[in-house]
Amino acid sequence: FMYKKNGRFDRVCMKTPIYLDSTSELSLQAQIRQKVIDAIADGVFPVGSRIPSSRRLSDDLGIARNTVVLAYEQLLAEGYLVSRQRSGIYVSEDLSRVHVGKQAVKSAPKGPSIWSQRIARRVHHTRSFAAPAQWQAFPYPFIEGQFDDTLYPIKEWREASKAALSVGQINEWAGESGVADDPLLIEQIRTKVLPKRGIRADADEILITLGTMHALNIVSELLVQPGTRVAVEEPGLPQVRDLVANRGGALWHQPIDNDGVIVDERLDRSEIIFVTPSHQTPSGVTLINERREQLVQKANELDQIIVEDDFEFEANYLNRPQPALKSIDTQGRVIYISCLSKVLSPGLRIGFMVGDAELIAQARKVLQLQVRHSPYNNQRTAALFIQMGHYDTFTLSLHRTFEQRWIALRRAVNYFLLPYVEVSRAQGGSSLWLRIADDIDPGYLVTEAAKQGVLVEPMHDYFATSGVEGNYIRLGVTSIEEHEIKQGVERLRDVIHSLSSGAVETLDQYDGDLLEGHQIESAITNKQMVCPIAYDDLCSINIISGGKLDGRAGAAGDDADQGQWWIEGDYWCRQWSRWAWGEVGRYRVVTTQDGTVIKLFDEKGRLIDQGLLRAISEGDAELSHDQTQISRNWTQVSQPTGTTEQTD
Amino acid sequence: FMYKKNGRFDRVCMKTPIYLDSTSELSLQAQIRQKVIDAIADGVFPVGSRIPSSRRLSDDLGIARNTVVLAYEQLLAEGYLVSRQRSGIYVSEDLSRVHVGKQAVKSAPKGPSIWSQRIARRVHHTRSFAAPAQWQAFPYPFIEGQFDDTLYPIKEWREASKAALSVGQINEWAGESGVADDPLLIEQIRTKVLPKRGIRADADEILITLGTMHALNIVSELLVQPGTRVAVEEPGLPQVRDLVANRGGALWHQPIDNDGVIVDERLDRSEIIFVTPSHQTPSGVTLINERREQLVQKANELDQIIVEDDFEFEANYLNRPQPALKSIDTQGRVIYISCLSKVLSPGLRIGFMVGDAELIAQARKVLQLQVRHSPYNNQRTAALFIQMGHYDTFTLSLHRTFEQRWIALRRAVNYFLLPYVEVSRAQGGSSLWLRIADDIDPGYLVTEAAKQGVLVEPMHDYFATSGVEGNYIRLGVTSIEEHEIKQGVERLRDVIHSLSSGAVETLDQYDGDLLEGHQIESAITNKQMVCPIAYDDLCSINIISGGKLDGRAGAAGDDADQGQWWIEGDYWCRQWSRWAWGEVGRYRVVTTQDGTVIKLFDEKGRLIDQGLLRAISEGDAELSHDQTQISRNWTQVSQPTGTTEQTD
Repeated sequence: FMYKKNGRFDRVCMKTPIYLDSTSELSLQAQIRQKVIDAIADGVFPVGSRIPSSRRLSDDLGIARNTVVLAYEQLLAEGYLVSRQRSGIYVSEDLSRVHVGKQAVKSAPKGPSIWSQRIARRVHHTRSFAAPAQWQAFPYPFIEGQFDDTLYPIKEWREASKAALSVGQINEWAGESGVADDPLLIEQIRTKVLPKRGIRADADEILITLGTMHALNIVSELLVQPGTRVAVEEPGLPQVRDLVANRGGALWHQPIDNDGVIVDERLDRSEIIFVTPSHQTPSGVTLINERREQLVQKANELDQIIVEDDFEFEANYLNRPQPALKSIDTQGRVIYISCLSKVLSPGLRIGFMVGDAELIAQARKVLQLQVRHSPYNNQRTAALFIQMGHYDTFTLSLHRTFEQRWIALRRAVNYFLLPYVEVSRAQGGSSLWLRIADDIDPGYLVTEAAKQGVLVEPMHDYFATSGVEGNYIRLGVTSIEEHEIKQGVERLRDVIHSLSSGAVETLDQYDGDLLEGHQIESAITNKQMVCPIAYDDLCSINIISGGKLDGRAGAAGDDADQGQWWIEGDYWCRQWSRWAWGEVGRYRVVTTQDGTVIKLFDEKGRLIDQGLLRAISEGDAELSHDQTQISRNWTQVSQPTGTTEQTD
Repeated sequence: FMYKKNGRFDRVCMKTPIYLDSTSELSLQAQIRQKVIDAIADGVFPVGSRIPSSRRLSDDLGIARNTVVLAYEQLLAEGYLVSRQRSGIYVSEDLSRVHVGKQAVKSAPKGPSIWSQRIARRVHHTRSFAAPAQWQAFPYPFIEGQFDDTLYPIKEWREASKAALSVGQINEWAGESGVADDPLLIEQIRTKVLPKRGIRADADEILITLGTMHALNIVSELLVQPGTRVAVEEPGLPQVRDLVANRGGALWHQPIDNDGVIVDERLDRSEIIFVTPSHQTPSGVTLINERREQLVQKANELDQIIVEDDFEFEANYLNRPQPALKSIDTQGRVIYISCLSKVLSPGLRIGFMVGDAELIAQARKVLQLQVRHSPYNNQRTAALFIQMGHYDTFTLSLHRTFEQRWIALRRAVNYFLLPYVEVSRAQGGSSLWLRIADDIDPGYLVTEAAKQGVLVEPMHDYFATSGVEGNYIRLGVTSIEEHEIKQGVERLRDVIHSLSSGAVETLDQYDGDLLEGHQIESAITNKQMVCPIAYDDLCSINIISGGKLDGRAGAAGDDADQGQWWIEGDYWCRQWSRWAWGEVGRYRVVTTQDGTVIKLFDEKGRLIDQGLLRAISEGDAELSHDQTQISRNWTQVSQPTGTTEQTD
């Protein structure tokens, strides 16, 4: 008798509830043992009943009798079964001493719920966007904070995990009495992790938490009471607002701009300030040095507390990372919160909090009343992981991977999305934050994109105040492999394009003159085309007679490339050596009547690129790419992302 | 050059900061890799600097050059090091991009603390007794809830852990988006764990927590607000009182007796009742069936909520376990809380909560704002541990081990401590709760016992009200192996004896007549000696002429033993076949003048045993052991342990 399970045929025992699963990784013997235990638990083999003989079971299943005998022997040794001479093998009566019998199992109560009116306090809990549980099934998941499975240091974590489960180690962590964290993890964080952020702390200034959210929760429990004035970033993490609101705190939403949170007199009334200096959540911008110093100085003068959430410090690709605020705090006013989750997978929940010893002692009491302590096995595994050097290795490798992905993302956004979005001036981080057209509903876009296999996140949950200008989505690179990024962004462009009817120029509806082949040649030869690019820098392309292209990008023109151009019919064709993935691009060309603005449309009529045109001297060997001068004309391309209206 | 470290001589490299640790479990290659990483992190090998050649390092350390070469190759591949042709090996410049340099490290702030006046809310946190961190170093640790290292299912947990870290599994749990618990663990608890407690629940009625304390915390967060009337058991878990007090709830302390918490009209005003029916914390008594039904019925009538903390359900040795209160709840009023920690080690922090789906949904929001979710790696490992059958196996084996230990403890307490303590009528559980003399300070006793290597716990932290009668200590068996129990209790007796001067009779100070050898013989021959024993049952010993002993114990006389007796000088000697470990006991005998009470003192003059004497018919073949009749005379031996005064 065969029946199909998960698309495979498995051997089934007709006379007993035992079947073998051919897809299982367990040995036959282990499977039999487990199935017998299941059958006992389910009451199929009641306590005290006789079970099939090994001969019969092996015949039924068509396997070697010895396999069954060995499984039964193990179950006998474990006390599940007892053997009675000349009678057979029985389910042990002892089992009834630890199990309440099946007859006691009641159905779930069916009466009306008594809870609707009851729950004392409806918890503030902003419904925020959550990635679908099956996000890994999507081909293009741009979900910030989720890690794709190529990233886990599985081998290294296994090694640390195995070491933590060695007899010597297990006796150390399992016997901890719950009053302290694992001293080995504290030591590793103190000596290997914090110095990278410029922070020096003693062991009693560190508390292990279950991630950064947990640390934020504990800080709120300790410091926020009804009426406490708390400043948060706008936009910012909705959960931080929830935590403060749940404790009755009075929120102030401080706007951000391209240099991070704005430090001005609007912060003066606040007693506590929550900030994300390394990479502002959710915009990704980095707080500049000048403001860091202002912030700490202001806190010293006004007796304020700063809570520094530094969850993404590893991820600054473009600049040397800034030291933490905590490192310039001389009065113990900064509570520093970070985690190992970015490195060790968020599922593990390992975070920490650094602050004044007195504060940490109180925080530990709150934590003990919540969860007693963070699981010791994970603490010890993380400690060994760091001690073995894997943390450093993996941080470095993650940094490189995310850098490559982020650059790929920026390039793809630049190529495909430029006419449709504005990009915030993020310096690294693992995401880009895009402003889409005002008439596109971000929630609808997210849903439509998901239908095409592209997962992006809407940003409106991050805004607390109503006067948000613009609609934003975020594309993260922690969850998508580099080689999928280009196509993912291209598909996203298609979705946005289909929702943008009329808002963005197309070949059906354009402003200017559509050029024919010979017109193109004379319009562009020996001209410099200056284009905004997605990330706030400019790009200049010298279009030289004879079909040569010379391009510079970046503030210092430090990204350069060469290429070729030619005319095919009414199309301007170009191909870079590296830019645009070295692929041939074919464009229809539109210019304004004065010939100073040029627009390129692809073969489907979609706007791909636009720029200024200006003449350059023919035959000039050193063709000028004067970025500074050009920049002045384009400063309005990327808008500040903050808002100013408050709903305090 | 050799220097001594941890009592061993290790090879040290003089010219580099690399030394090899001969005690390390790591391979030489792995050690070199790690030491180089440490040296980079410590700034000993600065970023960009040249490191010693493999030849030099291998020479310095006196090891094969190839070992160093392989370690360097790994570091090169990992990006720590870069090789420059004909120049050497250098620390990668890339490292500065992810690490803030050493120069940024600041000293800890030295100013006065700003925190003393600041922390908004001093947390209610009863200082409760905590086992010393080094409890495993004590020879006789009777610490309830700590597990000695023979108990961990290390092999099985490792197997489940390894399976959870397989590529397929890791991708499942690591990619969870944090909005739900591990469905596999929910399913295992639903189908394998809850049915043993008579509970049937759907998946949306279960929440995974970090242990029972966490579940209690979440329930308090949800249901207790200022003024909410909450009943707790007295004595009871201090942390539950703290949780309620921190939320501003009004506490009522309901007394317990030998049948568990008293169910009467004093509970009527309460809106929420926290109970520990399986084994009352800390007394260990089990709530009888009648009261269980009363409690649930009362809750239905008065619209009350019951929080059932069932953390020790596996541990009832004497009776078949009672189904949970939750199993007789038809209106969804019982919130059931339990954990897998007793089985999987408390260090792992895996608990769960079962309740109405609406309540669980709200509870999940609270949990998400605290810790997002319980660590998924532990959830999945626990799920696989249960699925593989290890949970059942281990529960059973733990049950047997604790049963044996607990019986050994009871026997030793009976033999050594009977004159000094009263024992609560615990039915199983993994501890005994002892009342010591009123004039012995339990804290002092605990300290003095610890000096003798015996760890016991004082119980006063469990009492909230001031009118506690008596001083209590607890002896648990989860942390001490069976063969250590007898000697541990004997040592404890010595400590108690030394603190009990005058309170307990000794041969220096006794009441009655001290008998000489020939007087003993006539006083006891053909008599029945009826003794209380430590755990509420009685024991009767028939002392038969010709030197035979016939003993019965237990309510139904179901524990019987035979032995011999004889006189040596002025000592009555006796030896049982099993009782008193089959050892010879030598006692001086004191009787009252009417000959009805007998007291036995050991060779050091300490009171060992006392009982009633009555005549039996010489030569009676079936010597009577009429327990029922005797019991009436001894009902006062074990006092109810509850108190009635309230400090609400």
